[in-house]
Amino acid sequence: MKSVAVRNIRRAGLEIVDGLAILGVATVHEAQERTGLLASYMRPIYPGASVAGSAITVLVPPGDNWMLHVAVELCTSGDVLVVGVTSPCTDGYFGELLATSLAARGVRGLVIDAGCRDVRALAQMPFPVWSRAVSAQGTVKETLGAVNVGVVCAGQVVEPGDVVVADDDGVVVVRREDAVRVLAMARAREEKEAKARARLQNGELGLDIYDMRSRLASKGLKYLDE
Amino acid sequence: MKSVAVRNIRRAGLEIVDGLAILGVATVHEAQERTGLLASYMRPIYPGASVAGSAITVLVPPGDNWMLHVAVELCTSGDVLVVGVTSPCTDGYFGELLATSLAARGVRGLVIDAGCRDVRALAQMPFPVWSRAVSAQGTVKETLGAVNVGVVCAGQVVEPGDVVVADDDGVVVVRREDAVRVLAMARAREEKEAKARARLQNGELGLDIYDMRSRLASKGLKYLDE
Amino acid sequence: MKSVAVRNIRRAGLEIVDGLAILGVATVHEAQERTGLLASYMRPIYPGASVAGSAITVLVPPGDNWMLHVAVELCTSGDVLVVGVTSPCTDGYFGELLATSLAARGVRGLVIDAGCRDVRALAQMPFPVWSRAVSAQGTVKETLGAVNVGVVCAGQVVEPGDVVVADDDGVVVVRREDAVRVLAMARAREEKEAKARARLQNGELGLDIYDMRSRLASKGLKYLDE
Amino acid sequence: MKSVAVRNIRRAGLEIVDGLAILGVATVHEAQERTGLLASYMRPIYPGASVAGSAITVLVPPGDNWMLHVAVELCTSGDVLVVGVTSPCTDGYFGELLATSLAARGVRGLVIDAGCRDVRALAQMPFPVWSRAVSAQGTVKETLGAVNVGVVCAGQVVEPGDVVVADDDGVVVVRREDAVRVLAMARAREEKEAKARARLQNGELGLDIYDMRSRLASKGLKYLDE
Amino acid sequence: MKSVAVRNIRRAGLEIVDGLAILGVATVHEAQERTGLLASYMRPIYPGASVAGSAITVLVPPGDNWMLHVAVELCTSGDVLVVGVTSPCTDGYFGELLATSLAARGVRGLVIDAGCRDVRALAQMPFPVWSRAVSAQGTVKETLGAVNVGVVCAGQVVEPGDVVVADDDGVVVVRREDAVRVLAMARAREEKEAKARARLQNGELGLDIYDMRSRLASKGLKYLDE
Amino acid sequence: MKSVAVRNIRRAGLEIVDGLAILGVATVHEAQERTGLLASYMRPIYPGASVAGSAITVLVPPGDNWMLHVAVELCTSGDVLVVGVTSPCTDGYFGELLATSLAARGVRGLVIDAGCRDVRALAQMPFPVWSRAVSAQGTVKETLGAVNVGVVCAGQVVEPGDVVVADDDGVVVVRREDAVRVLAMARAREEKEAKARARLQNGELGLDIYDMRSRLASKGLKYLDE
Repeated sequence: MKSVAVRNIRRAGLEIVDGLAILGVATVHEAQERTGLLASYMRPIYPGASVAGSAITVLVPPGDNWMLHVAVELCTSGDVLVVGVTSPCTDGYFGELLATSLAARGVRGLVIDAGCRDVRALAQMPFPVWSRAVSAQGTVKETLGAVNVGVVCAGQVVEPGDVVVADDDGVVVVRREDAVRVLAMARAREEKEAKARARLQNGELGLDIYDMRSRLASKGLKYLDE
Repeated sequence: MKSVAVRNIRRAGLEIVDGLAILGVATVHEAQERTGLLASYMRPIYPGASVAGSAITVLVPPGDNWMLHVAVELCTSGDVLVVGVTSPCTDGYFGELLATSLAARGVRGLVIDAGCRDVRALAQMPFPVWSRAVSAQGTVKETLGAVNVGVVCAGQVVEPGDVVVADDDGVVVVRREDAVRVLAMARAREEKEAKARARLQNGELGLDIYDMRSRLASKGLKYLDE
Repeated sequence: MKSVAVRNIRRAGLEIVDGLAILGVATVHEAQERTGLLASYMRPIYPGASVAGSAITVLVPPGDNWMLHVAVELCTSGDVLVVGVTSPCTDGYFGELLATSLAARGVRGLVIDAGCRDVRALAQMPFPVWSRAVSAQGTVKETLGAVNVGVVCAGQVVEPGDVVVADDDGVVVVRREDAVRVLAMARAREEKEAKARARLQNGELGLDIYDMRSRLASKGLKYLDE
Repeated sequence: MKSVAVRNIRRAGLEIVDGLAILGVATVHEAQERTGLLASYMRPIYPGASVAGSAITVLVPPGDNWMLHVAVELCTSGDVLVVGVTSPCTDGYFGELLATSLAARGVRGLVIDAGCRDVRALAQMPFPVWSRAVSAQGTVKETLGAVNVGVVCAGQVVEPGDVVVADDDGVVVVRREDAVRVLAMARAREEKEAKARARLQNGELGLDIYDMRSRLASKGLKYLDE
Repeated sequence: MKSVAVRNIRRAGLEIVDGLAILGVATVHEAQERTGLLASYMRPIYPGASVAGSAITVLVPPGDNWMLHVAVELCTSGDVLVVGVTSPCTDGYFGELLATSLAARGVRGLVIDAGCRDVRALAQMPFPVWSRAVSAQGTVKETLGAVNVGVVCAGQVVEPGDVVVADDDGVVVVRREDAVRVLAMARAREEKEAKARARLQNGELGLDIYDMRSRLASKGLKYLDE
Repeated sequence: MKSVAVRNIRRAGLEIVDGLAILGVATVHEAQERTGLLASYMRPIYPGASVAGSAITVLVPPGDNWMLHVAVELCTSGDVLVVGVTSPCTDGYFGELLATSLAARGVRGLVIDAGCRDVRALAQMPFPVWSRAVSAQGTVKETLGAVNVGVVCAGQVVEPGDVVVADDDGVVVVRREDAVRVLAMARAREEKEAKARARLQNGELGLDIYDMRSRLASKGLKYLDE
């Protein structure tokens, strides 16, 4: 592993990041043709949180959270910390103290392919975390990793500066260079969905709105009366 | 797979269905001799929901939610949609738009042996869902399945028109033809439990209420003082 | 299995137990050198609960909760019931009635390496439970087990009278004879953390507070500018 | 649960059953339009076994194998025992003695949605078993179940007399009334595959044999040179 | 964790250990009333191995195999190494070199609640291992653990000098002080089973040999003809 | 997803690839500082296979193996097919016919983060596969993916032309540009291990060979006599 910490990364504009946050994971994921979704074992530690931020990426060894302290200094307002591990681990790498430090810098949340602890305190702050486990098991500070290199987190590559969107549906990563385009497509999708929602609320059927009946019939669907 | 959609199914009376909803999963499951419980990986997407309804059953291929749109039209007030898959899948078959459409028809909830998304919006509506996963991964509309045929959902056979009861303890299915009898037995059980609850609150012991001491002794239980 | 129920066990002082409850799982686990943590699959059935108590231990066969009734009588105010199984099982051993009985005796919660049911009612009481599963599947009363013998629960040995601390981070067991010492160490740790928290809130970095920079450099960390 | 044991069931002809055995799970599954496959957690206890037989179905409570003894008497040469459980369990319901008894009656194997033990002895007999677990944990004989009623085994309904095919790829169930038709379709598929295999061995490409190139292009596939 | 290595432990006589090896896991587990079975996720890395030995116990941190080297020196002919971890880990703690060293001392196998690697070389030696995972991920030598203290391995307490029996069915631990008695009971069981096996081979039914018919009838089993 | 198939990729020299095959996964993984190991759920479908090859990478949708046919044409002798999925899936993407086609082109094996079928036929060919599941569930040919783009497979990024090494310990990926250097380091490690192996066979202890005693003492290890 390259033991490096990259100081200056390029980020998407905050207005782009904030736009993506409002749209949420499912819409953004659809808008970029269903790519970039982290594995569904990544769950929020409390319901209702919804954020987007520029990824500060961290690569850590199993059971060792030293590089998280290195990463804090490289974060700025509007960032999200994204942590991958070099070997699977559910230990609690992250708790209230690191969250306090990140919050003081304006960091919006943590996405970690490992465990987290102090979840009640984090919910009270609030500081949102998406993790694969909750565990009080602490970690050591013995072995280096890297900050702001490409990492694999829950099955997806995340590059530093990519935009990470996270809510109750999970986590999706948007390439920094695609963020403007994805935002536009996601907004277009959202508008289209708003119209469909209104019609569905009025009792119209998706079968009619999306004109599915003839295609269903041609594929061979038969309606029966019992 | 038979690509059919059965239009008219027989349902239990709504007063029976509503009676079962009040009693809840654990009591109903006991009342029908501990049969019909779906696998415990079926979890509500938010706590506190409690429903019962007549099952509109849907059989879907992995990653394809087309038949859910077909099913919507066949639902009526008081129904619950029950979805089985032909091969295991955690994709998000169901989200806010389908929920809007079902809610407009008076459908009470969804039980799906796959994934669901838009969970925050669903919690706000509220539209309750019991699923094996939460995932923003969308599905396609390419391959037919079936509506209102018998399906296996989370290890249990569900026939169209069966009564499905779901709450924070999970999901149980009651055969339509057994629903009246099960309701009566569940109510009897509930009354009996109410009496036991009162005695236990007063500090009486289950050992005495259920007369367990002599049977424990005859089986060989020894009390020791350390 | 020895079918015994031990009546009189030694407990830690209640002021010690209560002191540990306030500090919480993560701090207590650290204070005793990261020992005693139950497996992270042990999750609270609702968020926000936080208790400590003296362990009344129960060893049960798969699918049989008879010994829980025996255990109730041996509990007193300030206890926590800790249940191990002789073979893995996710059935719902415990529900509202047993909780009512335990609450009437001042018991503070349940830790069970199996399933639990009636979770909505338990949340309303409230009676906190940490379990490996939620399942409405009931159990029988056919086979003996033991009360107040050493059990393995979620990977940890728990002896009767040990102090069990449980919150949203999980469950940790403190040996009865170590409880005073662990409480003192946990309090010391808490004070130290309070100071660090204040400095981190002010924007100081862990890198500086914990004097990590030179050690990172000597291990070979390189800072790069992209 | 209905505590019944049905004595006389209808079976498919042995020549049909044996024909399906030769074709194997993957081919049979395809031939019946990808239905009837048991969950992939059902694994053979040793490699290389390949059988088909008429299903004698058994429904058992968790941790109780009593009904397997009842089932033995109802088996005849060419049968396969198929066991579903009323609640999930990995205990070792089945071992060398039951296998000896079944082998003496000409039974060809066991498919059990639970655990099995004595696997070395079973491999030496040989008596093939497909199970979800290997576990030495024994079971009791306290509670009734049923023999030759419809059961759910690893996510599929199996009716008594259905044909079960099992090999290293898993287990598939064929409805008794479909067995003749499925056999014919599976044989046709096998012949078609034999021809494709010969062409592929000669280096022809599936792209050409199955005429995929134009459809790939029309869907938008682009070939690039790096 | 106490960082100690206990040099001299008491062992059961080798003739007792060897007697238990012949009988195997399932029989020994039954003979001691179904206690002491390790979790069924503990699987042999190759089929057919069958050993028993006196436990040299090792407690290791996640991802750190240093104490295994300490343990080697404390082993003697007829021992089995039993390794518990202080936090869950699937890393490959053990490979060909440690196996070579243990084999040179007459150690009979390894039981590890973590990962193992070099499995092909181990199969060729052969040196049997029961583990929860196979993983090439190496470990470090930074943090102490303990040798020959009581450990929890796959859900069971193992004390140094306990007899560990392992075969294709899994792993069972016999308390050293119970080993003579358990051996006698296991042999008695084996003899009884041999007689039953002979009768079952001749086509007699368990229903008759174990005299189950009247008890089944009194519990309410009904035989039906379809 | 970019629907592209890249025709010409750069590969490491075959003598490098073959050198890595001989050394095996564990040694190669160590030699590149413990990077590049795929998740341990990737298991060989039969024991004893050991290969290395240049990666032809394929990205596929869930339940759709169309791109595998596209990939075959782009393979040459000495390659290994590496398949990542855009959403988790255990279906059987690959069987005997595709293996026949790949074998005819000199391809050495398949690494697939999904399911595989026809495992008995594959073992007889033999054609080695490392997969996360065995499943007879077939796939469709409806949706495009990509060939020879970077993919994530079982938690690791694999680029086309990277060297993939696979044996009973799992799978490791070596960057093409690092292959020469890693081979040299792996050989050096192998030689060092050969010397250690000889000394360990003679009964020398790792404690002495690696000079661990003083470091253990300084860390605080105490030897006790029971």
